[in-house]
This record gives sequence, C-alpha cells and structure tokens, in this order.
Amino acid sequence: MDMRRLVGRNFARIRREQGLTQEQVEERSGLSQQYLSGLERGQRNPTVVTLFEVAQALGVTPVDLIQPDNVKMPRKS
Amino acid sequence: MDMRRLVGRNFARIRREQGLTQEQVEERSGLSQQYLSGLERGQRNPTVVTLFEVAQALGVTPVDLIQPDNVKMPRKS
Repeated sequence: MDMRRLVGRNFARIRREQGLTQEQVEERSGLSQQYLSGLERGQRNPTVVTLFEVAQALGVTPVDLIQPDNVKMPRKS
Repeated sequence: MDMRRLVGRNFARIRREQGLTQEQVEERSGLSQQYLSGLERGQRNPTVVTLFEVAQALGVTPVDLIQPDNVKMPRKS
C-alpha cells in the first residue's frame, strides 16, 4: 500500500467534502499551501503529529486520513 | 491528543498481544530495536510510511496503531 498516495487521496476528498480550499487549510493548520499541495499529490510522507494537525484543520480524526479508501460503503437503496 | 504517546501505547499493546519481542519486530520490520523502544515510550514521531512498516510487522493495519485507545469496548457479560 502506498501510504503517501492514500493519505493524499483522503485529504483531497475530505477537504472538498468540507468545502475548504488549500489556502483555508493552510490558515487553519499553519502548514504551507505548498506542503498541502504536495500532500494531496501523494508526494509527502507526513508524521503522525502532522496527520493530527491536518485532521484538526479539517474537523476529522487522523484515522480518517489513513483509512483505506477501497472499503466499499453500504449502498443507499 | 499526544499522537506520539498514543502510537506508543498501541504499539506496545499490540506487540504484547501478538506475543512478539521488540527484537522480533526489529527482524520483521528492519527498524532498529532502539527506534522501536523509543516508539513504545512515545518519544518518536513516525511517518505514515513507518507506521505502515510497523503495522505490517505486527500483522495489523496502520489504523490500529493510531486508533484512540480511550474508546470503551462493549463489555462481555
């Protein structure tokens, strides 16, 4: 599993779900927009402390950022 | 939340549950016993890639290592 890409995909998805721009996450987390952009592209290998800071800025938990995204959710019928 | 300590507690607990010594995790993960000892004491700030390597060595997922441990499990009656 490519953890960098997994975290990047989750971060991008959750950020959009929350209607936030990278600039807004920058303001909330103190992490640069350049860093966040690289994170989203799977080019960063964040530490657990950074993961926590990003999660806080998004209003989610660190678990949400490393949760495998190939887990099928139950379909709404 | 102190992510370093949370990961340390989870790592120590799971390692013992699996009946593994730090030396055995060293052999399986390629991470030094010195690093693993610091991790267990909450003194390391592992990256998501390291988290994955440790999880692989323990036979669990990275999520298991950052899962909050204050979540009460249902009691067996």
